[in-house]
Amino acid sequence: MAKIPHRLTLTEDQMPTQWYNMRADMKSLPDPMLNPATMKPIKKEDLYPIFCEELAAQEMDDRTAFFDIPGEVLDIYKMYRPSPLTRAYDLERYLDTPAHIYFKFEGNNTSGSHKLNSAVPQAYYAKKQGLKGLTTETGAGQWGTALAEACAFFHIPLTVFMVKGSYEQKPYRREIIRTFGADVVASPSDTTEVGRAILAANPGTSGSLGCAISEAIEKATKNAGYRYVLGSVLNQVVLHQSIIGLEAKIAMDMIDEYPDIVIGCAGGGSNLAGLIAPFMRDKLRGEKNPYFIAVEPASCPSMTRGRYAYDFCDTGKVTPLAKMYTLGSGFIPSPNHAGGLRYHGMSPILSKLYHDGYLDEARSYEQSKVFEAAVTFAKVETILPAPESSHAIRCAMDEAIKCRETGEAKTILFGLTGTGYFDMAAYQSYNDGTMTDYIPTDEDLAPGFASLPKVSGIQE
Amino acid sequence: MAKIPHRLTLTEDQMPTQWYNMRADMKSLPDPMLNPATMKPIKKEDLYPIFCEELAAQEMDDRTAFFDIPGEVLDIYKMYRPSPLTRAYDLERYLDTPAHIYFKFEGNNTSGSHKLNSAVPQAYYAKKQGLKGLTTETGAGQWGTALAEACAFFHIPLTVFMVKGSYEQKPYRREIIRTFGADVVASPSDTTEVGRAILAANPGTSGSLGCAISEAIEKATKNAGYRYVLGSVLNQVVLHQSIIGLEAKIAMDMIDEYPDIVIGCAGGGSNLAGLIAPFMRDKLRGEKNPYFIAVEPASCPSMTRGRYAYDFCDTGKVTPLAKMYTLGSGFIPSPNHAGGLRYHGMSPILSKLYHDGYLDEARSYEQSKVFEAAVTFAKVETILPAPESSHAIRCAMDEAIKCRETGEAKTILFGLTGTGYFDMAAYQSYNDGTMTDYIPTDEDLAPGFASLPKVSGIQE
Repeated sequence: MAKIPHRLTLTEDQMPTQWYNMRADMKSLPDPMLNPATMKPIKKEDLYPIFCEELAAQEMDDRTAFFDIPGEVLDIYKMYRPSPLTRAYDLERYLDTPAHIYFKFEGNNTSGSHKLNSAVPQAYYAKKQGLKGLTTETGAGQWGTALAEACAFFHIPLTVFMVKGSYEQKPYRREIIRTFGADVVASPSDTTEVGRAILAANPGTSGSLGCAISEAIEKATKNAGYRYVLGSVLNQVVLHQSIIGLEAKIAMDMIDEYPDIVIGCAGGGSNLAGLIAPFMRDKLRGEKNPYFIAVEPASCPSMTRGRYAYDFCDTGKVTPLAKMYTLGSGFIPSPNHAGGLRYHGMSPILSKLYHDGYLDEARSYEQSKVFEAAVTFAKVETILPAPESSHAIRCAMDEAIKCRETGEAKTILFGLTGTGYFDMAAYQSYNDGTMTDYIPTDEDLAPGFASLPKVSGIQE
Repeated sequence: MAKIPHRLTLTEDQMPTQWYNMRADMKSLPDPMLNPATMKPIKKEDLYPIFCEELAAQEMDDRTAFFDIPGEVLDIYKMYRPSPLTRAYDLERYLDTPAHIYFKFEGNNTSGSHKLNSAVPQAYYAKKQGLKGLTTETGAGQWGTALAEACAFFHIPLTVFMVKGSYEQKPYRREIIRTFGADVVASPSDTTEVGRAILAANPGTSGSLGCAISEAIEKATKNAGYRYVLGSVLNQVVLHQSIIGLEAKIAMDMIDEYPDIVIGCAGGGSNLAGLIAPFMRDKLRGEKNPYFIAVEPASCPSMTRGRYAYDFCDTGKVTPLAKMYTLGSGFIPSPNHAGGLRYHGMSPILSKLYHDGYLDEARSYEQSKVFEAAVTFAKVETILPAPESSHAIRCAMDEAIKCRETGEAKTILFGLTGTGYFDMAAYQSYNDGTMTDYIPTDEDLAPGFASLPKVSGIQE
């Protein structure tokens, strides 16, 4: 076997030049999105008021396996990619495990996460269509930062609706978005109808991703030349994030490795879907059989405890309906420290793959267990991880410990989606011993499920 | 000419395995350090109470040109190195300059800067000598973070004296150091004699690097088995940081480039010295003649307005005396936003090279000009730079603009030492238009110069 370096970074010439679309190899496709006005399957054109045209086409395309990455997008990718594939030699030693642990690290860019991979093409296609501006939402702030970076590059005005809780607790995240020239509005705000309605109903609310999405869509659809963009969940985002897995697979091929287990944290699902994409291709085509694990917070358990149902993607119920694992758009997530995983639903593609057994397992962890893994990882591997990413670390460590017990030298690949530099308040709470865990009871989940829409003949 | 990629990252096999010591090629050596008790040149053994033995040897060695990097140190380097050499194509386009602009980016590690390059060997040698613990100081926090990372890896207890102003204004920097397991003490503190004396004389002081150094040295020398480590200024640190320039030179050789101008920000000087090291070797040996520029803040102008004189490295006057450009150890820097450049002195090696004309130019900028460059750079190159690094960006942009005017296609290399993720309060002040500049008057500088020690027969 070839010598395995600590970090394997592809050259520019070795970078993928196409994104991979898992739907093209799925025997059973995700159920179609429904137009909320008609409850009929949506057409590409129905999406044009919300998304720019090329992105609407990517959203709906379940046949094309590979999409060329535009040259202008590749040029920006090359400013921070390829990202390294790292062999966690020191974590293996610390755990005394025969497992080979690899992680694909997406934190080496100013957004601090993988989010830039989709922000760049979304801003690029908007520019190409001659749009006047974009709107979006952000929770933890990585997506808002990433899109602000991309919009600054392409000179596109951007308004970011930032979940009020984050806006207040993470002033530096807010400031970095401002530094790239975007407007940042705390959500819910009085700048939209839906925001005013939510404020009237819940005056003290600290907001949610679902609510911020509603506001961003309203602003986009009411301003000529504006469109809305989203950082996860959507098929187009899953497509763009396939760059993560495609790079990882090329690098693993170079060192004659193939993952037995692939692990990713899952909020809206874009990182996990992007990481597993080429390996899922092998599985869908019957060529390989890697084991896939989605990891989510116990406080927001959309896959482990949610229902596979049609639901809105936002709190204000203005989006198309998607069939997905969901806690209901009325679910109000508790304020834990992994803001990027605090979303009621899950990528429809991943949901379908999970429902059909291709995505093998969903697992949830309480946050104190997650931070314990995060601090261990930081001390051993020198990288301070994001709370979101640390869910995958926790799971990878547990799988590697199982290997120690069974003596199996499995190859484990996990996604290290980002860094925790803007999450030090969370680390402080862990370091001080004041961090608490929260697992919703069935009663806590009931109002969310009650909010699920009724769809005649499909879902009553 | 070979095709020039956006980012050129060496493979592990291409990484340097030795550090380079500029002193071995200097025809005229820096003046020796003096023992403050005797005012005689110091011997290696005199340093043993402060530094571990291998580092004391490196500090005093002006003959050995290349030092092998220990394998254990190389293994940690490989967790975050080689760092990329980036061609700033988009900045060139933005500036409409024929210049080729390159930067060596050291921010892709959790310390957020180049500081980890010296923290790792310093912790390693301490471990090898069987020391019980280390002490150090930190200003902006990068060095404290870097050393905490290295000490966590080698399981060495660490106490960090953090300049009180930073301790209070940067709670998240403090927290990241704590997360890696180090104790953090606000300096001046009541835990040392020198701290109590400084507090008695200046009750409201927000501290300074010079003061924190005094406290860290006192704690190290009064606790058996403890030693002190420093993140800049020293010859040993300059040696370790040569990895920056050595990697850059290998990468530039691969694309048939050689810098006409090399630019680095300079606080204690370690980054600049490390970046220029192999290029300075060429100049010292008469083989090439690159132009070197040190950039410092106008508010702390040790090279542009300081004196070349023997001085203490700390405020408490407990260190050996070094011949260097200095504003006097009694100089109290104004609270600007580039904490890492707020030091009264300058590396004795760089000082000598500047005095003898090998380091060609020192230049100072006011901070609002620096942040203007920082924000432009972020928008164009997607990386949010540290305020310290942005001094080099400002200078590189100005040199590239000169090239536009003269039509010369010069090759410019600058050091992008780190990221600004913990400096968002500074960016906020710039974004809000509330940032002010400060240039000390001659009267402001007078007390610092008056604090310079008298050395019989050498400096009266």
